[in-house]
Amino acid sequence: MEPGARQVLVRQKWLSIDPYLREQMNDAESYFSPQPLHEVMIGGAAGEVVQSKHPDFAVGDQVIGLGGWQLFATINGAAIARVDTTKVPLAAFLGAAGMPGITAWYGLRKIITPAAGATIVVSAASGSVGGVAGQLAKLIGCRVVGIAGGAVKCRYVVDELGFDACVDHKADDFEAQLAAATPAGIDGCFENVGGRVLDAVMRRLNPFARIAVSGLIAGGYDGLPVPIADANMFSTARIKMEGFIVSDHRELWPEARSELAGLIASKRLKYRESIATGLETAPGALIDVLEGRNFGKQLVELP
Amino acid sequence: MEPGARQVLVRQKWLSIDPYLREQMNDAESYFSPQPLHEVMIGGAAGEVVQSKHPDFAVGDQVIGLGGWQLFATINGAAIARVDTTKVPLAAFLGAAGMPGITAWYGLRKIITPAAGATIVVSAASGSVGGVAGQLAKLIGCRVVGIAGGAVKCRYVVDELGFDACVDHKADDFEAQLAAATPAGIDGCFENVGGRVLDAVMRRLNPFARIAVSGLIAGGYDGLPVPIADANMFSTARIKMEGFIVSDHRELWPEARSELAGLIASKRLKYRESIATGLETAPGALIDVLEGRNFGKQLVELP
Repeated sequence: MEPGARQVLVRQKWLSIDPYLREQMNDAESYFSPQPLHEVMIGGAAGEVVQSKHPDFAVGDQVIGLGGWQLFATINGAAIARVDTTKVPLAAFLGAAGMPGITAWYGLRKIITPAAGATIVVSAASGSVGGVAGQLAKLIGCRVVGIAGGAVKCRYVVDELGFDACVDHKADDFEAQLAAATPAGIDGCFENVGGRVLDAVMRRLNPFARIAVSGLIAGGYDGLPVPIADANMFSTARIKMEGFIVSDHRELWPEARSELAGLIASKRLKYRESIATGLETAPGALIDVLEGRNFGKQLVELP
Repeated sequence: MEPGARQVLVRQKWLSIDPYLREQMNDAESYFSPQPLHEVMIGGAAGEVVQSKHPDFAVGDQVIGLGGWQLFATINGAAIARVDTTKVPLAAFLGAAGMPGITAWYGLRKIITPAAGATIVVSAASGSVGGVAGQLAKLIGCRVVGIAGGAVKCRYVVDELGFDACVDHKADDFEAQLAAATPAGIDGCFENVGGRVLDAVMRRLNPFARIAVSGLIAGGYDGLPVPIADANMFSTARIKMEGFIVSDHRELWPEARSELAGLIASKRLKYRESIATGLETAPGALIDVLEGRNFGKQLVELP
């Protein structure tokens, strides 16, 4: 555990429990390496430097990185980032100011690029990505309509996050509700569900609409096919659909993180966390996420 | 027929017979106005100015515009373009140096933007759009694989247009042939078919591949749905798919037309034409296009 040259030892305080961890366990090539067997589970974490052999880090620094599921992590200094926790809690740098928030920031700002007044639809709107995407669109002056599963999540999206409307995709009249909530059509969509939810959105797209695709959970984590019912809209309405993975754009993380942290500090960006306590709760917390039992960003606290 | 102020009278020589004319006959809003009943059929044409009340046009000028299915057209000068026929035949400005060629140019240069060495797939490769798209990609230094229906069209695509390979989508082992022709995967696709052809292409896309969609004829001209079998690739491979309509980008037409005409004049861009003769042949020529009996750009000559 003794850090080598340019390494630090981190006492980890928070583990980030994310859906992609399940995909990482598949024995298949993807945009990340598969989780090796009999080794510490890889995953995002936040903690405090307790020993440093890297000139940029001092004991007491609050840092985030891929520390994995363990109390203490020895990490290369180049692979971690120091964060300022004077106005924003450390755990937020795993959520609204971390990978999920930056995912929302990238999709909205770099792919959808909406103008004020545009109608933006956000799927999985109560989640840690969708919630930030919609609030960022509101700050631009968009009309923002969430899609979420069930009345409780929909109320949270409207009452707490400030979306203009939220449509329950489990409702029998989902399509009619979506139409009623988007009277001027849809100019942009932050999509991470797919299936009938995306099909319903596509039928209401305005010309030149843009869809940012950040994973399609409708296929489940076993990667079942997620069909699109009709691609004719692509040319007739000149649609652009672009998939992205936020880890491809590390050069933008400092800018995004700093902006998101500023919005959290000034209470203009809200989020919710589900917290489990103790390293031994991590596997169960991941299963909760995969089965949709969490509400907001799922964390494991390591006291 | 006497031209008014800023109008010209054109003796038309060539009519452009294009698939979109069929859609234009549907009683539905689209990106063009529906064809009015009991009026001259709207459509692209090329001819010679025989009378001019516009300061920019003189008798004898060779021009293209939406003159419609008639021998003489009275048109606003602002709606036509003069073309230089000293090195390129007038009819080419309706085909490889006209709307189909510019469609290919826009999709390849502004959406796919391939680098030398990339593998580009072009569907409907023997057509007046696909043929130009593939040749432009070859000029960039790409490996270019066409998809066409039948051995005759495939031979033309490889032997005359110079594509590296062409795969017959009617073949039983189409997917295996496509895989064999794209050993390094697919980096870009110029797509105007959809359905199983597009699905097969999508399964072979490399990360960050781009798909330019210029209409999806798999749905026919009645606009049947054209499903996409699996959208998971969008995020896992960070695919961008963008639909476009070349008439949205009129500001780029002079640049594109001039480049394409230059390539035709220097014999670096080849094309084929199907020519019917006489105004009365126009309806039949359109039906030929819709039923796939033409080979290359379909024209009607008006002697």
